[in-house]
Amino acid sequence: MKESIGQVPGLAVILVGQQRDSLTYVRNKKIGSEEVGITFLMTMLPDNCTENEVCNALQSYNENPSVHGIILQLPLPQHLDEGKILGLLTLEKDVDGFHPVNIGNLAMLGREPLFIPCTPQGCIELLIRSGIDIKGKKAVVVGRSNIVGLPTSLLLQRHHATVTIIHAYTKNPDRIAREADILITAAGVPNLVCKNWLKPGAIVIDVGTTPVEDPECEHGYRLIGDVCFEEASKVASAITPVPGGVGPMTVAMLLHNTFESAKRAFKFT
Amino acid sequence: MKESIGQVPGLAVILVGQQRDSLTYVRNKKIGSEEVGITFLMTMLPDNCTENEVCNALQSYNENPSVHGIILQLPLPQHLDEGKILGLLTLEKDVDGFHPVNIGNLAMLGREPLFIPCTPQGCIELLIRSGIDIKGKKAVVVGRSNIVGLPTSLLLQRHHATVTIIHAYTKNPDRIAREADILITAAGVPNLVCKNWLKPGAIVIDVGTTPVEDPECEHGYRLIGDVCFEEASKVASAITPVPGGVGPMTVAMLLHNTFESAKRAFKFT
Repeated sequence: MKESIGQVPGLAVILVGQQRDSLTYVRNKKIGSEEVGITFLMTMLPDNCTENEVCNALQSYNENPSVHGIILQLPLPQHLDEGKILGLLTLEKDVDGFHPVNIGNLAMLGREPLFIPCTPQGCIELLIRSGIDIKGKKAVVVGRSNIVGLPTSLLLQRHHATVTIIHAYTKNPDRIAREADILITAAGVPNLVCKNWLKPGAIVIDVGTTPVEDPECEHGYRLIGDVCFEEASKVASAITPVPGGVGPMTVAMLLHNTFESAKRAFKFT
Repeated sequence: MKESIGQVPGLAVILVGQQRDSLTYVRNKKIGSEEVGITFLMTMLPDNCTENEVCNALQSYNENPSVHGIILQLPLPQHLDEGKILGLLTLEKDVDGFHPVNIGNLAMLGREPLFIPCTPQGCIELLIRSGIDIKGKKAVVVGRSNIVGLPTSLLLQRHHATVTIIHAYTKNPDRIAREADILITAAGVPNLVCKNWLKPGAIVIDVGTTPVEDPECEHGYRLIGDVCFEEASKVASAITPVPGGVGPMTVAMLLHNTFESAKRAFKFT
């Protein structure tokens, strides 16, 4: 793109506060962007900033023609209205795919969202590139967050899986999970999923990441997943680790979405 | 409303073609509106009309301040782009709740759609008014259409059921259905669900309506559901008939949405 039209895609991140895992994610997005030649911009705001400050930062990226993707790093501090702020994000720059229009179009058959949320799309790519046919498979998603569980279930459904979502009110979640050909967990509960949750041969994708103190690690903590990896790996036919499983896929999909957005903006084909 | 502010709600329906069940639905909406004092407007277009004609009709209702709810009666003939036309409908008058923004906000936790689709909301009302606690129940939805199956599954999830959607690619649908505490069918396949699909004591809501010729009926045909009613009624603890089950609830919810929309427009509380 740079060679043919002298333009590069731009990605902007707004980070509020200093939550450790958010810092990790943002760092990885920056490294990824620089590796592939995407201009990376960032606005860091303090934990106690006002809604206005976040909206202003967002608005200025909305209007900046060098920015093709904007990420409001979630979760936001409690005092900020996430729904309201996300609603201000220009649909054409919503590379996270969290705008209600994108989620609505993801949910509905025959519609095409402008962007598919990155983590769900990363999970699907892992399945497809591992040669797994999703159509007709029983898929269970653990957790129903707006940023992972919900869009993952909608996307699996688009790929014609038979999908069940497990959440806090689900009775006997282990029994339901044990029916799954494909189990995707995004609960944020360390070691929730042990071997009695798994059908032998199941495919397990672990999106859970909970930071735990560990002075021996580079940043003083490490991330652990939802799955008891060691025992699960003896039952599953395929399984992703934490870290190093879905995380890098999420970043890759984000860079992909940003590139697609820039192509649309520059009418570059 | 008429007594206190001298205004009444208005509902407009756009009907393309003469599909029999659509005619039935529209007739019921007209009767319902007149019963409760909602002004009912209708535009009937021929089966072979152009997209422009539909869009113009829609646009004129969008701009008409006496209209608070607009219904584009679905399905449209194949040559019309349903997604595109629905996208033109003013969000504030989308009393069917099919706009992607409404579906997105229905799907996401912590967001509130302006309108909840009428048939799904009718099903939930039936459950609630029958004293059934949805939270934690296993719910299975048969069919994933944008107008019934999908929004019903999203709404059940909002009420904290554990939801599975069965569709054309689902393997062993009877086995999955047999796990359901609440089974809602909207497949449009007559007699698909027989007693071996049901757990004893299950609650069954039949949204399926397929018209079949019957010269003895008033309009030359009758509607039949997805469920083998007679045998299912011996297994289920509660079951809705077709016709006369969900249909009247759909109309009631539509009138409710239209009234709510008019209240918002007139700032009437």
